Amino acid sequence: MTPVSRESADTSSGVFRKAYRTGSRPDIRVPVREVTLTTGDSFCLYDTSGPAAAGDEALPRLREPWIAERASRGACMTQRACASRGEITPEMEFAALREGVPPELVRDELAAGRAVLPANVNHPESEPMLIGKAFLVKINANIGTSAVTSSIAEEVDKMRWATRWGADTVMDLSTGKRIHETREGILRGSPVPIGTVPIYQALEKVNGKPEDLSWQVYADTIIEQCEQGVDYMTIHAGVLLRYVPLTARRRTGIVSRGGSILAAWCLAHHEENFLYTHFAELCEILRRYDVTFSLGDGLRPGCIHDANDEAQLSELRTLGELTKTAADYDCQVMVEGPGHVPMHKIAENVRLQQELCDEAPFYTLGPLTTDIAPGYDHITSAIGAAMIGWYGTAMLCYVTPKEHLGLPDREDVKQGVIAYKIAAHAADLAKQHPGAKAWDDALSDARFEFRWEDQFNLALDPDTARRYHDETLPAGPAKTAHFCSMCGPHFCAMKITQDVREYAASHGLADAEALTAGMTEKAEEFTREGGRIYLPVAKP
Amino acid sequence: MTPVSRESADTSSGVFRKAYRTGSRPDIRVPVREVTLTTGDSFCLYDTSGPAAAGDEALPRLREPWIAERASRGACMTQRACASRGEITPEMEFAALREGVPPELVRDELAAGRAVLPANVNHPESEPMLIGKAFLVKINANIGTSAVTSSIAEEVDKMRWATRWGADTVMDLSTGKRIHETREGILRGSPVPIGTVPIYQALEKVNGKPEDLSWQVYADTIIEQCEQGVDYMTIHAGVLLRYVPLTARRRTGIVSRGGSILAAWCLAHHEENFLYTHFAELCEILRRYDVTFSLGDGLRPGCIHDANDEAQLSELRTLGELTKTAADYDCQVMVEGPGHVPMHKIAENVRLQQELCDEAPFYTLGPLTTDIAPGYDHITSAIGAAMIGWYGTAMLCYVTPKEHLGLPDREDVKQGVIAYKIAAHAADLAKQHPGAKAWDDALSDARFEFRWEDQFNLALDPDTARRYHDETLPAGPAKTAHFCSMCGPHFCAMKITQDVREYAASHGLADAEALTAGMTEKAEEFTREGGRIYLPVAKP
Repeated sequence: MTPVSRESADTSSGVFRKAYRTGSRPDIRVPVREVTLTTGDSFCLYDTSGPAAAGDEALPRLREPWIAERASRGACMTQRACASRGEITPEMEFAALREGVPPELVRDELAAGRAVLPANVNHPESEPMLIGKAFLVKINANIGTSAVTSSIAEEVDKMRWATRWGADTVMDLSTGKRIHETREGILRGSPVPIGTVPIYQALEKVNGKPEDLSWQVYADTIIEQCEQGVDYMTIHAGVLLRYVPLTARRRTGIVSRGGSILAAWCLAHHEENFLYTHFAELCEILRRYDVTFSLGDGLRPGCIHDANDEAQLSELRTLGELTKTAADYDCQVMVEGPGHVPMHKIAENVRLQQELCDEAPFYTLGPLTTDIAPGYDHITSAIGAAMIGWYGTAMLCYVTPKEHLGLPDREDVKQGVIAYKIAAHAADLAKQHPGAKAWDDALSDARFEFRWEDQFNLALDPDTARRYHDETLPAGPAKTAHFCSMCGPHFCAMKITQDVREYAASHGLADAEALTAGMTEKAEEFTREGGRIYLPVAKP
Repeated sequence: MTPVSRESADTSSGVFRKAYRTGSRPDIRVPVREVTLTTGDSFCLYDTSGPAAAGDEALPRLREPWIAERASRGACMTQRACASRGEITPEMEFAALREGVPPELVRDELAAGRAVLPANVNHPESEPMLIGKAFLVKINANIGTSAVTSSIAEEVDKMRWATRWGADTVMDLSTGKRIHETREGILRGSPVPIGTVPIYQALEKVNGKPEDLSWQVYADTIIEQCEQGVDYMTIHAGVLLRYVPLTARRRTGIVSRGGSILAAWCLAHHEENFLYTHFAELCEILRRYDVTFSLGDGLRPGCIHDANDEAQLSELRTLGELTKTAADYDCQVMVEGPGHVPMHKIAENVRLQQELCDEAPFYTLGPLTTDIAPGYDHITSAIGAAMIGWYGTAMLCYVTPKEHLGLPDREDVKQGVIAYKIAAHAADLAKQHPGAKAWDDALSDARFEFRWEDQFNLALDPDTARRYHDETLPAGPAKTAHFCSMCGPHFCAMKITQDVREYAASHGLADAEALTAGMTEKAEEFTREGGRIYLPVAKP
């Protein structure tokens, strides 16, 4: 992996500092969060929080020169088109550095449509982010105002807060009256790709009446959003008229807002979904800005009972067809998935999506593995998310503790992001992503060596880890103690293990020697021969 | 399923009341938590909270007559021995009623050693609880004082609190000075089986010096605990002298307290683990009281790096051998498992344990699927717990948010139990346990029909669900509103779906009719013919 250039670190707060991995040109600088350990070493953590910024301050336009260089060339300039021509863009190189993989792999996965790099030419502030099964599993955080609650400033703050804890993308799902302004604040301040569901804004334009929607209102809305810089858009083009009756036998009908709006439109007009009939035009628009399709699953199941039913799978087949159309236009495409799915039906979702959609990246909401725990759906769904990530899903849309009950506040956003970083990292470990395990190893080493401060600072959430420890052993010396309040000084398994090893060391017995001697038969033989590797622990 | 006798309900608090399923004799009464719904129906939830009791009050001695009847007969009277003779004890019938399965299945699983029913003859207060892969996945909550913190009253309160949220068994892991008194308080007040790790108390008896332990001190300790009423005991008889050196190459050595104590003893004396060499005597003692073995995994991995290593698997092979020995004595046996295991190595743990241990019930701690999130290990481990439960683990030992950082307080106990009830229920759904899905369906129906109060009351944690909802929409009318703060009134997918269905109904079109007409081709045909099942939603 490319060495981190510490010279260029531009923030510093005690043990944490932002450092950079630099690429083949000086403006390719990938930020990492460098943690200084008490051993004198340091460890670099993945970091999507972007440059420091306050209030409504816009971020630097990182990608502006890269976009300008391409713009002069005329040809189709989606990242996918560039990749297909064999080109490695600065965005691809940036993403490769962040992932710790060769840029050629990034190019090849993009060209094959197995990965996307959502990067609207009008969102130069964003840092490139890869979404594909060959890479780290990504997570998305949903934010946004509703008609009932919350303000623009709050939403911008939630966006920053989500990236602080590791969100790889953020979706602005605002409804209500100030959608454009809210999105502007979020886009200009966001270091990560921003996604939207344009039908929400289109519906506001027709005063909330689904039947008054039209292709023209919708097209105007997506052009407005493309111009503004949205990086990917959920488009429910697979909710076909003939699938709607299939939802009538369901326990919870249609639970996707976009899906229900389009279903209502189809039924009202007795016509096919205008997103489906105008899909080629959609491709032309999105290609112009390199906006990535996120083909929405408007008929996803809303409860365990409805999982993997005919309505869901019919729509998925149509999404497969649309994936191929988008590919013909060199558009980047990912495909959304459920929802509520019991564990034994999760793998089937990935298998079918990958098969029907030519391995386009899968982007799932959870799935929640049970319906019984409103208030804890970050947990019911982290279980499903970890599994579906392992099976090959490229991005996991978070679920917060407020799911089904209310809009997430700042603390809910954090809890959702943390639960999903756990799920994504557990999936990276299970996929044996190169480098994923180093973080676990660094933290485990700190734990075993009683380096409490390092254990806290390497934790996904250092604040909470430290606070929990301090609740029972607040004193400063406890931070260097070789035990914790769980077992106390005489009962600590790790301490006893350490004592054994130290005893061996102090008597000139290296670990390696003990090891060699120790392998099953050898150990017995050693004992028979009176060999004394270990001696009593508490007294000599 | 046996009808619930509402007449016999002995507590009542608004919508919740304790009701009973009565068996073949009047003293077999299985409590359930009956929820009265706003529809006039009721739904019965699984309930392990036992009879109401305050402070240090002892519970009624439910099983006393059953135990007395058996005591007069002379022969080996473990539940396993009874089952092997073809007998269905009142305990088996009670457990069958609680599970909703035939008593014969309970008997057969116990006889085969594929399930245990931990029920010490000296713990008549406990309600029978089945642990085996053919039944609902169970969860255990650990509590207990340590040398550093907490009191007896607090621990008794935690035990009650844990069973309120659904703990199926509780382990008292107390260390420090008042182990016997703490356990007495817990045992007399507990409606669920109680487990312990006797080596902790034995170590206190020798002033915390592992090398001063002996078989005699240990045997005295377990007899004391058997007399007192402990239902199952973790016994680390598989930590053999020759396995200890295998832990030297590990990242985090030995992380089981019991394992490290016995490893230290073995090394100090250069002798084989006295629990292994005296295992037959252990069987004779435990059989006398029908105390269930929980064969401890003293060499379980303590970090992702060490998962499924030679130390762990060597010990498991020995546990398999000991399982067979215990079976020869008609003892009930379960086998403990890890720990820290990445997702892709979880299935192997179950496969090997089931194969090596003649399908004895597996009882695992988590496993944690990553090491990076101290402060959130209830979540890192709920992922692993749900999966391992699905794969066939019979009981999941909870992990609280304080794991690795401190002893759990009351709130941590609740968070740990909730996370594990989620994992266990998700596993029951995936195993397609008969009846498991009814709870999800009841809650989903309430959700779809906007029966907010029913949704809260059916939730695993009604208090939290209601509180989260009230944070954004506190007003009383919001409890009957056909939307929530997530989407607002015009954006609710479920509301739109309802509107469509209601429109159809008000025009005399039954769901069944719409459905029949709606199946793919039919729907198209209907449209072509100008048939109008659905009409615009917002205006007629």
